[in-house]
Amino acid sequence: MDYKKYIREVPDFPKKGILFYDITTLLMNPDIFNVMINEMAQRVKDLEITKVAAIESRGFIFGAPLALKLGKPFIPIRKPGKLPYKTVKYEYILEYGKDAVEMHADAVMNGDKILLIDDLLATGGTIEAAANLVKKCGGSVAGLMFAIELEFLKGKQRLSGFKCESIIRY
Amino acid sequence: MDYKKYIREVPDFPKKGILFYDITTLLMNPDIFNVMINEMAQRVKDLEITKVAAIESRGFIFGAPLALKLGKPFIPIRKPGKLPYKTVKYEYILEYGKDAVEMHADAVMNGDKILLIDDLLATGGTIEAAANLVKKCGGSVAGLMFAIELEFLKGKQRLSGFKCESIIRY
Repeated sequence: MDYKKYIREVPDFPKKGILFYDITTLLMNPDIFNVMINEMAQRVKDLEITKVAAIESRGFIFGAPLALKLGKPFIPIRKPGKLPYKTVKYEYILEYGKDAVEMHADAVMNGDKILLIDDLLATGGTIEAAANLVKKCGGSVAGLMFAIELEFLKGKQRLSGFKCESIIRY
Repeated sequence: MDYKKYIREVPDFPKKGILFYDITTLLMNPDIFNVMINEMAQRVKDLEITKVAAIESRGFIFGAPLALKLGKPFIPIRKPGKLPYKTVKYEYILEYGKDAVEMHADAVMNGDKILLIDDLLATGGTIEAAANLVKKCGGSVAGLMFAIELEFLKGKQRLSGFKCESIIRY
């Protein structure tokens, strides 16, 4: 499937000099969106997965349908302060400053095998923080799944300890 | 279906005195999550819908699977500054201050009939802004869909001009 023709390339977003790969044009085509979710499910069919966790907020767009397709529980990983119940938090360093991700403390149990999903693999900082969050709760990471991977940013090197899949690569 | 037993009630979130209805416990049950998406699809089957638009970010969790189920294009409605391409914006007044929603300018065309979806109907301010965004682009609102409705906040009165559906009511 040539997904790339459904991806819009937007120059200078979020800042000058960056070419942004816009998935919203793909989402406007339900057949292609559906083919992509099926391909994601196919790619992870041999992994032992107990739950699917997706990163706010574009990760939810792929994570929720994939969890339903796989028949697995869906866990939202969110920015701090958004989840109502008791949470665990993992802070990580960005190029300038720091950020954090949170998950409900009872979402991942000892022995859980989590498939983590986000729309985009860039440098891999956010997904690495999400993986640490899973481990902090006693779970392990069964695999990582992305709609788009920016190979030139070498995120996969940073994530070499994980089984890592992406559908569209630039 | 007694969905309420899958909803966790969290007192004093996001602030003291508010009882928050937490959907994450429902999302942990893939069978129930699936039944809910099917029920949403069933409720709108007689509406003429050309596209499904969901509000960031919990709305994405229900909106993406529902759009796929209905075989309709999926449109994300987001906080300002998040969408990469040309956008339209609608500002609305909150109890203290104001907020805004944005959509890609080419997402809704003249004549489009949009199903709007969000996780929660409270006072209805956000969904009303989203409806105005749709109209601003020349579309009409085919219906509104919510996972949860807080009936005591009377959001439906404010939205009386629309066909409005909710799955769980408090």
